[in-house]
Amino acid sequence: MHGTIIPVRTASAVYDVEIAPGLLGSIGERLAALLPARPRMFVVTSPEIWALHGEAFAASLHGVVTVLYVPSGEEHKRLATVERLAEELAQHGADRDSVLIAFSGGVLGDMTGFLAAGYMRGIRYVQVPTTALAQIDSSLGGKTGVNLAAGKNLFGAFHHPLAVYADTAVLRTLPAAQLRAGLQESVKAGIIRDRALFEYLDEQHEAVLNGDEAALTHVIAASVQVKAKVVAADEKESGERMLLNLGHTLGHAIEAATGYKQLLHGEAIAWGMIAAIGIAERRSLVTTEEAARMGRVIRAYGPLRNFSANVSDLVALTAKDKKNRSGSRSFVLPIGIGDATVVRDISPSELINATEAMMELRGDFHRGAQVPA
Amino acid sequence: MHGTIIPVRTASAVYDVEIAPGLLGSIGERLAALLPARPRMFVVTSPEIWALHGEAFAASLHGVVTVLYVPSGEEHKRLATVERLAEELAQHGADRDSVLIAFSGGVLGDMTGFLAAGYMRGIRYVQVPTTALAQIDSSLGGKTGVNLAAGKNLFGAFHHPLAVYADTAVLRTLPAAQLRAGLQESVKAGIIRDRALFEYLDEQHEAVLNGDEAALTHVIAASVQVKAKVVAADEKESGERMLLNLGHTLGHAIEAATGYKQLLHGEAIAWGMIAAIGIAERRSLVTTEEAARMGRVIRAYGPLRNFSANVSDLVALTAKDKKNRSGSRSFVLPIGIGDATVVRDISPSELINATEAMMELRGDFHRGAQVPA
Repeated sequence: MHGTIIPVRTASAVYDVEIAPGLLGSIGERLAALLPARPRMFVVTSPEIWALHGEAFAASLHGVVTVLYVPSGEEHKRLATVERLAEELAQHGADRDSVLIAFSGGVLGDMTGFLAAGYMRGIRYVQVPTTALAQIDSSLGGKTGVNLAAGKNLFGAFHHPLAVYADTAVLRTLPAAQLRAGLQESVKAGIIRDRALFEYLDEQHEAVLNGDEAALTHVIAASVQVKAKVVAADEKESGERMLLNLGHTLGHAIEAATGYKQLLHGEAIAWGMIAAIGIAERRSLVTTEEAARMGRVIRAYGPLRNFSANVSDLVALTAKDKKNRSGSRSFVLPIGIGDATVVRDISPSELINATEAMMELRGDFHRGAQVPA
Repeated sequence: MHGTIIPVRTASAVYDVEIAPGLLGSIGERLAALLPARPRMFVVTSPEIWALHGEAFAASLHGVVTVLYVPSGEEHKRLATVERLAEELAQHGADRDSVLIAFSGGVLGDMTGFLAAGYMRGIRYVQVPTTALAQIDSSLGGKTGVNLAAGKNLFGAFHHPLAVYADTAVLRTLPAAQLRAGLQESVKAGIIRDRALFEYLDEQHEAVLNGDEAALTHVIAASVQVKAKVVAADEKESGERMLLNLGHTLGHAIEAATGYKQLLHGEAIAWGMIAAIGIAERRSLVTTEEAARMGRVIRAYGPLRNFSANVSDLVALTAKDKKNRSGSRSFVLPIGIGDATVVRDISPSELINATEAMMELRGDFHRGAQVPA
């Protein structure tokens, strides 16, 4: 096993992220060691994930879990689902010592974290992420929440897991498009904080995308390391943590404008990064060569699928970004490759120009691209 | 003005509770001093409270607030209401710098605190409590949340206000039954931690209940002081803070069994205290004389209205108490007057006997009692 353990140390929590292929086979032992008092455990998962891996998971735990199901899909990431799950927990007698296990991708992981944050004002939970996006990004750092009609992740809590167990072998059982989209968060991690990771992603993209265990585990561990460092420095996103939002301002706007239905999250973030790199290039924060190289690597983890939206809607939607404060609009921009900054003086015309340039690229990227099933 | 400022100092927050008659007239100045950066403010209130005090409130703030309304009543203390309010905040452009003001009783105050805890993963809020219950107990300490069908306050967060402004003159505009019920939390505070307060409540009950400004302000300030000390010692209710739940185990069960409709919260807590005192007396934690005196003071702040429920339902409902951990049932019991403890070894028969004894008292207390309109 090419395993790695990465500690996350923040002001309010300390825990480990363990990354290894095949880790799921020993999840029961790991949880028993983590929770020696043997609390009641509730797994929150989707029917699809449980159909693929539930038998192995339950066998490793010797069956002593209650399973709560949530259908896949962003449209279920709402307070109504959280309330239904909380009622089920209460009906099953869950108390303050009970532990939730999010065995899922990022959407359900965020929601399970929020369920844990709110149930009886906070119980413990463990993340067992099953998608690249969740393993790289959303399972650690303590951001939990649900969507409002007004926007994504607008209601939630900071609540860290007790531990994160990322089995990289599980990623091979998921659609290739999900792996590719999730790896855009690794590209982001490389761009904002780890030039070596960016170069590895560039040079080894075939091995990574073919699911080579060592390559994939290396990329996920390096990405987790970037996130762990950023979160350690700024748990509540008052400064450095905002850098993790590279590509997210327009990415979230694209998701909202397309009803969260046309693109995967990582694909929308990839489009958002393209726009941010465009602004950075015009501001001379990155050279033309660096911008081109970043664009090439983002596309290597594509294809970046086309989507339908108009520029004015997208620009209007960026005004709802959670990072905006007292009316000023924040934007994360790369500085070369391996560094980034938050700017608050993006002008309307700068934003419109970058959005238009991004929209024009859709056709180019789309022509000849293989659209995943 | 007989005003008092009581600081609350916990591991995660430091803020003041200001208690004075007529404080509402200067709420605008106070908020301006508290929030010099002049963030956007959103008042969450009920139509009834706003009809009584909204004009004075808005005038003091020079009109620069947006008002969000929630109908009165425990049945609205649900995630669906929180979601509706969050959507309204988003529509009004509330961002991470915006501040909520809970201008309300405890039900709406708890919910507004939770709205602030969850909106964009946490914004600031101020409590301006308008009932005795809220001024004495629920507006400080950071417990926020909503009810589930399965039970009261089962979903929420710890999120402290920036400040609490309690205008004791406002209490005279509310129904007498609400004042009496709320003052049961002062009786509780006296029993668990402040014998002098208990004796004041006993000896001065006519002045307090007649709304004498000095007497009422003294009682509320002393009660807040008890809560502030307990919360400072144990913010997250791992130990001493549980003492604040004297009367709440059966009180919550009575509320659940009666659909939150037959009694006010303080009245249900009063019944729960009667049961707890009965258990304490049988265990010789209090003398017969002390038990009788406590019962007499509780009744002085009554009448304790009758309610319909059966013993087995009530006992079953206590099993859902949030304080229970890994199956063991916790109960707060007084030790004499001015001290209390948490016991975990309450036997089923002890609980059944105490519940039966409490139920038999209903008729006695009810006969000759004035039922408030």
